[in-house]
Amino acid sequence: MQDVQGLPDDREIALDRVGVAGLCHPIVVLDRRSEKQRTVGTFEMSVSLPREQKGTHMSRFVEVLNEHHGEVTMRTVPKILRDLQTRLDASSARVEVEFPYFLERTAPVSGATALMDYSCAFIGELSEDEDDFVLRVRVPVTSLCPCSKAISERGAHNQRGYITISVRTQTDLDGDPQLVWIEELIEVAEQSASAPVYPLLKRPDEAHVTVQAYDNPVFVEDMVRNVARRLQDEPRVHWFEVHAENHESIHNHSAFAQVTWSRSEPQ
Amino acid sequence: MQDVQGLPDDREIALDRVGVAGLCHPIVVLDRRSEKQRTVGTFEMSVSLPREQKGTHMSRFVEVLNEHHGEVTMRTVPKILRDLQTRLDASSARVEVEFPYFLERTAPVSGATALMDYSCAFIGELSEDEDDFVLRVRVPVTSLCPCSKAISERGAHNQRGYITISVRTQTDLDGDPQLVWIEELIEVAEQSASAPVYPLLKRPDEAHVTVQAYDNPVFVEDMVRNVARRLQDEPRVHWFEVHAENHESIHNHSAFAQVTWSRSEPQ
Amino acid sequence: MQDVQGLPDDREIALDRVGVAGLCHPIVVLDRRSEKQRTVGTFEMSVSLPREQKGTHMSRFVEVLNEHHGEVTMRTVPKILRDLQTRLDASSARVEVEFPYFLERTAPVSGATALMDYSCAFIGELSEDEDDFVLRVRVPVTSLCPCSKAISERGAHNQRGYITISVRTQTDLDGDPQLVWIEELIEVAEQSASAPVYPLLKRPDEAHVTVQAYDNPVFVEDMVRNVARRLQDEPRVHWFEVHAENHESIHNHSAFAQVTWSRSEPQ
Amino acid sequence: MQDVQGLPDDREIALDRVGVAGLCHPIVVLDRRSEKQRTVGTFEMSVSLPREQKGTHMSRFVEVLNEHHGEVTMRTVPKILRDLQTRLDASSARVEVEFPYFLERTAPVSGATALMDYSCAFIGELSEDEDDFVLRVRVPVTSLCPCSKAISERGAHNQRGYITISVRTQTDLDGDPQLVWIEELIEVAEQSASAPVYPLLKRPDEAHVTVQAYDNPVFVEDMVRNVARRLQDEPRVHWFEVHAENHESIHNHSAFAQVTWSRSEPQ
Repeated sequence: MQDVQGLPDDREIALDRVGVAGLCHPIVVLDRRSEKQRTVGTFEMSVSLPREQKGTHMSRFVEVLNEHHGEVTMRTVPKILRDLQTRLDASSARVEVEFPYFLERTAPVSGATALMDYSCAFIGELSEDEDDFVLRVRVPVTSLCPCSKAISERGAHNQRGYITISVRTQTDLDGDPQLVWIEELIEVAEQSASAPVYPLLKRPDEAHVTVQAYDNPVFVEDMVRNVARRLQDEPRVHWFEVHAENHESIHNHSAFAQVTWSRSEPQ
Repeated sequence: MQDVQGLPDDREIALDRVGVAGLCHPIVVLDRRSEKQRTVGTFEMSVSLPREQKGTHMSRFVEVLNEHHGEVTMRTVPKILRDLQTRLDASSARVEVEFPYFLERTAPVSGATALMDYSCAFIGELSEDEDDFVLRVRVPVTSLCPCSKAISERGAHNQRGYITISVRTQTDLDGDPQLVWIEELIEVAEQSASAPVYPLLKRPDEAHVTVQAYDNPVFVEDMVRNVARRLQDEPRVHWFEVHAENHESIHNHSAFAQVTWSRSEPQ
Repeated sequence: MQDVQGLPDDREIALDRVGVAGLCHPIVVLDRRSEKQRTVGTFEMSVSLPREQKGTHMSRFVEVLNEHHGEVTMRTVPKILRDLQTRLDASSARVEVEFPYFLERTAPVSGATALMDYSCAFIGELSEDEDDFVLRVRVPVTSLCPCSKAISERGAHNQRGYITISVRTQTDLDGDPQLVWIEELIEVAEQSASAPVYPLLKRPDEAHVTVQAYDNPVFVEDMVRNVARRLQDEPRVHWFEVHAENHESIHNHSAFAQVTWSRSEPQ
Repeated sequence: MQDVQGLPDDREIALDRVGVAGLCHPIVVLDRRSEKQRTVGTFEMSVSLPREQKGTHMSRFVEVLNEHHGEVTMRTVPKILRDLQTRLDASSARVEVEFPYFLERTAPVSGATALMDYSCAFIGELSEDEDDFVLRVRVPVTSLCPCSKAISERGAHNQRGYITISVRTQTDLDGDPQLVWIEELIEVAEQSASAPVYPLLKRPDEAHVTVQAYDNPVFVEDMVRNVARRLQDEPRVHWFEVHAENHESIHNHSAFAQVTWSRSEPQ
């Protein structure tokens, strides 16, 4: 049977990425207590394609994913990437997987517990000159407007906001990126907002977070800066992008702020 | 050329709806001041298919839409439906078109004006025994939680909510459904919430709506009941469904409420 | 602390549904081999609200979900519903949960296996007079156009389509709805299309499904009728709705067909 | 009334972007025949925020948009950017607007005409050192798999694909970016695929495009390379990114390819 993908190509154009997208698969991730969490990931997997080759072999992406049984962590993603590189005979490989991550949260007064979902992503890339790994976490928060509070006789508008943090970490002595836990980034985001968002609040909890938010007004700009300051103080973090978006309760559009930063000292 | 769709079918199954969906087309709608507003509609158009016919002729849906130059109002939708019925030789026809509708809104103190978008829909149906027309309007609002206000020392959580109103109206002496304007349903929704949502607010406006919301706390249940009471008092309205959803600022999920009602007196 | 939700209400409007939506939670479902599958569900949970009560207690929905540890099957959903009814003192309760369901599929020639995702839902409702349970499965398929094949000298346009089947089953002697497996509905859908869709195909498999689709052309209308015929012949099925949608490869819109059917003999 | 946004900030963190997102507004764009087309845009507008300022004034984004009456073209976007820069006292400003663009398309045999929608975007940026303007066009196409055709006895799987082209152009003598029309990029995309996608096809047209696609099989990699070759040969184009994605008819996931290129000669 003819290998059409393997045919030579004379258009002289190498492609940056060729692969599959929107691939839904059960995955296993590790949480901070080293316990395995089963969830569902949506994958984009790709490799570079040299100028002389007509096409890549798309089925091999699925095969490699299968062989790893959906185990995706900061430690297994590099292995998946190396397998893609080898199996597809490519100079670079890239995997991005998005998934809901669940964490048991305890209400601040009643102590009631329930699971809350955080949209996370691992983005790994392997090329000739370097490896790359980005952890991305989206954290829902409450934000209360400082301007509204300052100028209004009573009350203050507030809303659900989303803080999205992406980080690259310093490499350790083995050349591996240092671990930063999803839980740590969630904590950073929540401390930078007016109040955390919970899955389950009884009335005393609701009173607590209402006052907490009222006493900690922040603009979307403040949330980004608060997160940025905390991450700059964390020596494991080498690079970050912080994006915050408020689903404004007084408008039908969002307000957002964003910053990218890189540690200037040599990695 | 063979007419495969026109072939007989012996499976003995008539289909309720056959047609096209996700068809994007510029449209012209009328606003309350009888001025034409150009916007963009997403169409679902279908007809019933008798048991003895293999398939419908999908291209004719697009042809009929073309012939009406995208004019969609409470008065032209019935004509589109009759054309579909005739051209596709069908006993019933249905058109649903969703579109953003723009309205100039004036800020409550500064008088600053800007356009705000409301997601609307016309759903028309024509069958052997009756015509049907539903107008649907989704209105963003501010809702402030009465429980949070009552139990908290200061502040109260609030958020963007969406009130979706669908109505059928009484028929007039000519047998046509009476007109209800999109603008009227927007007004009903906003009066039933804690405060309206605006496209443009200067600081004095922001102080105004902050206090307005704080002084008018409503649960999602209250918003639905407030809308329902107003629509029951409006003699042109024959049937309604009201749905309200709060994008809770203290949770990562929504709270919602819903009611359907039909005037019991003979139409 | 004041129970604002428990206050009396004098607007005289009972609400059909009040509850939470967009709640993301890990779930456990059963597959045909009675093995537990861990996946992620998105819940909408609601109860009716009597006219004399101001509001429901939203946190109890999350508590009930917690207590059931996300176990959702045709047998546990009625228990969740009864708990909601009791805990929220409501006359009716409703749960809808959507989730990706994974099934190992074997390629038709090479025998290569991989997991494929199917979007499924359980919709349970408990009211004074009756229980209700609907199983919904969305199955991606290949559909090849009979008209294009008949009128074209070579080739035929084909595309990914989605067949969505919702069923209610007859009750057994204990009054419980009879079991129909997700796997069975997937099989019915695939037999009604031009060819199944697979997660992993090697070249001999690709040749196989290409010819299989070419030899089994179906309109979107045919897919609905083929499914309908199969379900009518299945005595456990009491009611169904079948919807098929082709993401047409020659248009930028979809073609769809739909039918609802109810067994006329007494249940 | 206090200007909270104008307060000094001592966190020493300048922000890259601060502004509004998800703002829906009617717009007017120009088509190739210099005629005005009314459609609907979704805006993201932002400015940079210096380290010493607490917040930006979000309402001014809406005011600037208002003053330009939604006129967005390659020539007016720079004016909007300058107004944002001035009104918000910012060193850089950025506007991204996405909109459906409608084009009358003529069926290849019957000559039947109808409007088709293309999702487009203008992305303009103004900073201290340079202006930037990117035009992005997403074109739906038919793609037919060369491998499937080569290895199968009859037929070949095909599907709807989307080719997304983003371009920056060379500046003319006045320092303005040279014009490239949306219509030109649509043409480039369609010539690079197996066949164009049409809004309205009668049977002779359907036979025509079926054979056209069968005779022009392309991988997703081929589509990207074909577009890239054409754009490299167009002297007005200075930079491009081409992304193609096939909604595979034999899988429940997509295949994609992507390349970025920059003209090496001095601009």
